[in-house]
Amino acid sequence: MTETVPSRRSGGRDARRAARLHAQLERTPFLTRTLAPFEVLGEEGLSLIEENADTILQEVGVEFRGDADALRLLADAGADVQGERVRFPRGMCRRIVQASAPRQFTQYARNPANHVEIGGMHTVFAPNYGSPFVRDLDGGRRYGTIEDFRNLVKLTYLSPHLHHSGGTVCEPVDVPVNKRHLDMVYAHMRYSDKPFMGSVTAPERARDTVEMCRILFGADYLETHPVTLSLINANSPLVWDSVMLGAARAYAEANQATLLTPFILAGAMAPVTAAGVAAQTLAEALAGMTFVQLTRPGAPVVLGSFASSMSMQSGAPTFGTPEPALVLYTMAALARRLGVPFRSGGSLCASKIADAQAAYESAATLIPTVLGGVNFVLHAAGWLEGGLAVGYEKFILDADQCGMMAVFVKGVDLSENGQALDAIRSNGPGQHYLGTAHTLANFETAFYRSETADNNSFEQWEEDGSLDAAQRANRIWKRMLREYEAPPLDEGIDEALRAFITERKASMPDSEV
Amino acid sequence: MTETVPSRRSGGRDARRAARLHAQLERTPFLTRTLAPFEVLGEEGLSLIEENADTILQEVGVEFRGDADALRLLADAGADVQGERVRFPRGMCRRIVQASAPRQFTQYARNPANHVEIGGMHTVFAPNYGSPFVRDLDGGRRYGTIEDFRNLVKLTYLSPHLHHSGGTVCEPVDVPVNKRHLDMVYAHMRYSDKPFMGSVTAPERARDTVEMCRILFGADYLETHPVTLSLINANSPLVWDSVMLGAARAYAEANQATLLTPFILAGAMAPVTAAGVAAQTLAEALAGMTFVQLTRPGAPVVLGSFASSMSMQSGAPTFGTPEPALVLYTMAALARRLGVPFRSGGSLCASKIADAQAAYESAATLIPTVLGGVNFVLHAAGWLEGGLAVGYEKFILDADQCGMMAVFVKGVDLSENGQALDAIRSNGPGQHYLGTAHTLANFETAFYRSETADNNSFEQWEEDGSLDAAQRANRIWKRMLREYEAPPLDEGIDEALRAFITERKASMPDSEV
Repeated sequence: MTETVPSRRSGGRDARRAARLHAQLERTPFLTRTLAPFEVLGEEGLSLIEENADTILQEVGVEFRGDADALRLLADAGADVQGERVRFPRGMCRRIVQASAPRQFTQYARNPANHVEIGGMHTVFAPNYGSPFVRDLDGGRRYGTIEDFRNLVKLTYLSPHLHHSGGTVCEPVDVPVNKRHLDMVYAHMRYSDKPFMGSVTAPERARDTVEMCRILFGADYLETHPVTLSLINANSPLVWDSVMLGAARAYAEANQATLLTPFILAGAMAPVTAAGVAAQTLAEALAGMTFVQLTRPGAPVVLGSFASSMSMQSGAPTFGTPEPALVLYTMAALARRLGVPFRSGGSLCASKIADAQAAYESAATLIPTVLGGVNFVLHAAGWLEGGLAVGYEKFILDADQCGMMAVFVKGVDLSENGQALDAIRSNGPGQHYLGTAHTLANFETAFYRSETADNNSFEQWEEDGSLDAAQRANRIWKRMLREYEAPPLDEGIDEALRAFITERKASMPDSEV
Repeated sequence: MTETVPSRRSGGRDARRAARLHAQLERTPFLTRTLAPFEVLGEEGLSLIEENADTILQEVGVEFRGDADALRLLADAGADVQGERVRFPRGMCRRIVQASAPRQFTQYARNPANHVEIGGMHTVFAPNYGSPFVRDLDGGRRYGTIEDFRNLVKLTYLSPHLHHSGGTVCEPVDVPVNKRHLDMVYAHMRYSDKPFMGSVTAPERARDTVEMCRILFGADYLETHPVTLSLINANSPLVWDSVMLGAARAYAEANQATLLTPFILAGAMAPVTAAGVAAQTLAEALAGMTFVQLTRPGAPVVLGSFASSMSMQSGAPTFGTPEPALVLYTMAALARRLGVPFRSGGSLCASKIADAQAAYESAATLIPTVLGGVNFVLHAAGWLEGGLAVGYEKFILDADQCGMMAVFVKGVDLSENGQALDAIRSNGPGQHYLGTAHTLANFETAFYRSETADNNSFEQWEEDGSLDAAQRANRIWKRMLREYEAPPLDEGIDEALRAFITERKASMPDSEV
């Protein structure tokens, strides 16, 4: 038992690097769950919500704003279009989506070891998305920069627990709004080799993303290989706006994947009740996915659900509460019944810092995310303040939790070694198992080893400086960034990407919209 | 929407007290789950573990140490007794337990509103148990005292989210070991009216507990009403010792309930694997429950499982990791199949303080506790440092999480109001729901209101002092203790209890064993 531990302890930096490489080699590119998802509603309840979604689509309808082409497309497919209001005959959306949307698809990465499966029994973790602020223990809270953006891409690349580089990991507010998408997409391509998301803040920025992907992967490759997965948010209640429709169209036309996500603060963008939120979410997502499937049948779509509860005192969004978990479990079941991949959850919280509130709330979101069977998990690491900020320490702590999920979803090992009956037989009452052959044989892999938890004695912890989890995480992300090395990228491709960016930036004046 | 909020905001202390009273009135004395438990193994896997448990009982056996009466009892019932080693023919324990142990029972409290149902679809939360140290933000970590003990009993009494007063909420080390059980049991009786646990550190201390219960409830009452539920831990692997057997006997003879709990640090007291831990836990618990049922058929028993993983570097116990969650889900299913109530889980952690580590680990234990269908939850609030310490702030934070669980287990409301279809119909695309009739009608009860989370804006949070969750919890427990008022207790009974304690204390010299 002592042969391994001392060498690991004394090895210092080299040993740590070796251990990390080992972890990289052992890591799986995504989770494959072995457990049936947790369900909060039976057949009857789920059918009822599906019927209500159909009623909403038929009676109330959905507005498709500022996009005449979308209205024509939907009318031609049989929808009742009055002005911008589109009403769908019962079952129309479900039929169209089920006819062509894939149940599961591969998102390709430039490193084939990092291809991810979206759908089925798989779960893919991606980092925080969309925060204008960043926070770390040293600098406190401040606006995000492109340097922060790159740091978060690098940390995601280095984390064996995150499978996907994400998209707007933070808003780089030091780059003009109309040009930052170029720097963001380039950062994902240059500093990581994991799959990533594209820009959606304007249709032409989506097209820039597609162009850059064509440079990186080859133009023909994209036609048959989704290499981006981009976030198309509904403007709830029951509105899809022209920016989102334009971005969704740009990606669909290039056979790239989109997440159609109603973003709902219950009580503001939908009724306050879980069943009401679920019915409206399903209606909105169905309408969005229908638009994508009519635009290009077979283009991969993911049904998204983002639902938070609300502080009834202040109207602020709240996270990690029971109600969003109930919505998540419900929506996951509805997506399975529809037969499309599902996005929801993450490590969400309202806390401003990486304290106990942040952790309780994040765990109370991430555990349902995994038990409910979510396929694509945005915001799996770093999220603070209802998404207004991304925290470096929070990122490290959350990623560690994602690592635990990878172990959990494997379930109980029922092999002979797992049953350990011979070990119990040969040990006998009152004899401890610390040095037994079975313990030694399973020593290295028996338990998940947290990178952030302090499991030492109180005395040792005190001697080590009485650090809290955030303080330990602070040391970890700094060490990771110090030791970061970029994955190799073909120089010609890199030059072509830079040339494209230079040309695009030169083609327009800076703008803050 | 504004009619309720301002009055609540401006009311100050009186309004807070009124709100709290309201919460007390609304609270349910225990949870009743409406959702099917999460399962990690199917019929085949669970049968396999049951067979392995039978193999352990038959081939390896269990030692019953220092208790000749127990050995005789087991031999008479058909066990193979060699010295202190007891081997059980396959199926014997299961048959005996199923023949007489109740599937569900009521534990009675002196306040009938606080009776709890143990078993079935019910979940009962009890606080931390057994810690020699206490911690709060002001005093740091120190040995627990009887004053701390009383404080924790008072806080549990005041919390609407905890249903049970627990037992050794902390060790009052300022009272001699051989007398502290009297002060502890009295504290539960005097400062709370919720159900509680008895002493188990010596058979005569269990009998003292029973005597005090007879004074409080009446001697005859106990014969038909379990009023204590006491923690009988196995000395794993596969040993029941004379102290625990003696305490279990004392309670069983008085028809009082016991929790038979193998306490397993996997890799030390059992093999490192989940299936191995589960088989051994089941074998040990079956042997213990068999002893109780033979002692007094029908005396309530609870199958307990406490399993932690281990740091393979230091050998220290670790919590909130995936492996103990898998054991918990497995054991919960095995207890359901056996047909006895189940105890496990809690808000367990290895962290020394109420930081993010503590919260992640606690949530990763408490959520499986509820989803797995645990019936009695010890350590639901306050636990730190693998149980070595109980934290005042951690207690407050954990209790808030227990409150969320009470909402979650109700599941999705599918009433017309829950479906909210009329609200969606009458609202239309692009219109927010903040002032709608449906939102107003559901305003008060729509979302769980956390007592500890800060959901304000960053700016407001900063203005309020940039407090973390533990700092906010510190203010809460102090306010609760300031405002505490003891529940009424008949003066004659109180005098009789005090007289009994005085007499017992005078009957023996102080001892630290």
